[in-house]
Amino acid sequence: MQDETPFFAERLQAAALALESLLSGLLGPAAQADEIARPAHLLEAMRHGVLNGGKRLRPFLVAESTALLDGSADAALRIGAALECVHCYSLVHDDLPAMDDDDLRRGQPTVHIAFDEATAILAGDSLLTFAFDIVAAPETPLSDRQKTALVLALARASGHGGMAGGQALDLAAEKTAPDEAGIVTLQAMKTGALIRFACEAGAIIADANPEDSRRLRAFGEKIGLAFQLADDLLDLTADAEAMGKATGKDAARGKGTLVALHGQAWAERELERLVAEAEELLAPYGTRSAVLVETARFIANRRS
Amino acid sequence: MQDETPFFAERLQAAALALESLLSGLLGPAAQADEIARPAHLLEAMRHGVLNGGKRLRPFLVAESTALLDGSADAALRIGAALECVHCYSLVHDDLPAMDDDDLRRGQPTVHIAFDEATAILAGDSLLTFAFDIVAAPETPLSDRQKTALVLALARASGHGGMAGGQALDLAAEKTAPDEAGIVTLQAMKTGALIRFACEAGAIIADANPEDSRRLRAFGEKIGLAFQLADDLLDLTADAEAMGKATGKDAARGKGTLVALHGQAWAERELERLVAEAEELLAPYGTRSAVLVETARFIANRRS
Repeated sequence: MQDETPFFAERLQAAALALESLLSGLLGPAAQADEIARPAHLLEAMRHGVLNGGKRLRPFLVAESTALLDGSADAALRIGAALECVHCYSLVHDDLPAMDDDDLRRGQPTVHIAFDEATAILAGDSLLTFAFDIVAAPETPLSDRQKTALVLALARASGHGGMAGGQALDLAAEKTAPDEAGIVTLQAMKTGALIRFACEAGAIIADANPEDSRRLRAFGEKIGLAFQLADDLLDLTADAEAMGKATGKDAARGKGTLVALHGQAWAERELERLVAEAEELLAPYGTRSAVLVETARFIANRRS
Repeated sequence: MQDETPFFAERLQAAALALESLLSGLLGPAAQADEIARPAHLLEAMRHGVLNGGKRLRPFLVAESTALLDGSADAALRIGAALECVHCYSLVHDDLPAMDDDDLRRGQPTVHIAFDEATAILAGDSLLTFAFDIVAAPETPLSDRQKTALVLALARASGHGGMAGGQALDLAAEKTAPDEAGIVTLQAMKTGALIRFACEAGAIIADANPEDSRRLRAFGEKIGLAFQLADDLLDLTADAEAMGKATGKDAARGKGTLVALHGQAWAERELERLVAEAEELLAPYGTRSAVLVETARFIANRRS
């Protein structure tokens, strides 16, 4: 595996800027120029939660999956914004004292620190709700059939059978360590579901045939697994550094991960295998899939 | 104004039973008979939050608004279930320690008491998400155009320009008392938006013409105002009883209400006026609107 090319880094950054610009507009003063009073304090908290300088990897996957099949870039940007609202609402709620109790995210105070707990709960709720507003809004240049399919897929990726369900399993895992199958299920739901949705969304936006849809979903599943494995490896490295030792079993975290079960060498081989399989899935598209393939590598190799 | 007829009470109760039955099925073991693992603990918390023996007034309004215009009763029941999920998610989150900090609701422990805070946050998030799942699901017998319109209207009634925004204004009102216009805005958002949506939903489900849609929306606005005024009167009575005195200015609650500003006699006259205006709006439908008119009276006269 190799580091990303300058071209890829620029493309990822350009997509992140376009997304920030859209979200800032949707949650900005101009969006309030109607008869509805949107409390300024709540809007500020929503902006704090979502305009956080993230890499915007999920919206990038929506954009590139859509581009692979010649779908509308404008629609992909809006669906990416909706997806990022869901991702960021989950971060705002996960950071709450009753959940992970984190005071900092990307070096900035978390929403309940910068505002207060009640405002953070409401800002998260509002970001989640706004995601569906964005999908269904007239400004999203898709058919009602596509919008309905996207609402359903996003709700299922986010809800009790997806991300929120995975988060509940994660809380339970702090008390009773899950077995390997349990870890796989937890991770597929908690982080995998939104990443898979990102790729599936491209197929829906581009009105893909069943074969293309199946390939993009399968690609999303592979890179969702890779994302989590890379995350676990990063945690291990961070722990090792923090503990001043070069190896570790991750037992200190009190939660099982596949890396903790099988070791770092296994995880690195598994990552290579997942990226190769993801690449293989997109082979029928030839060089058109180059950016998505590079995204898979980026996900596996990322160091933050 | 008169008490509701036995016929009305039976109809309201039958609708509540049908709704509980649908929601119980949607969140029951049968709904899990697929490949997706839905954490049992989270599902139980969602059921605790939503299967709470409420009057189900909002779903009833969806059903009766739909019936007025000969729309699909099956669709109305499912949209009512989605709306109730949104209403109940807001109760679960409002009861949290960081918000209203309530231990009991309808005589039962609130979700964060019966489970824990983290589970209550996730159960609320999941109920909100599930609402959009229900609207968009293939089982909802509506066109994609209708589903898209309902998703958008529900998201706007619930989000930062609707219910959640009203809740944020309500929190702010505990620090700085709003003026009369501020109170009206707060209430229109916090409680009015979902009630208006309930009536608007009937028009969307029945594919109503613009004139019928306008009437149902206006009707929803009137009874939303009446609902809040009746609530404020109930609070006053409850406070008076708790404080052992028969009159009161509601100043003890630390929040302004229109009843506190203008007094009980004014509020009772205003309620009568709102019900009369609501009735007038539906006059073109003759006796077909009898149940909705009785619902308006029920909302104004309710004692719990």
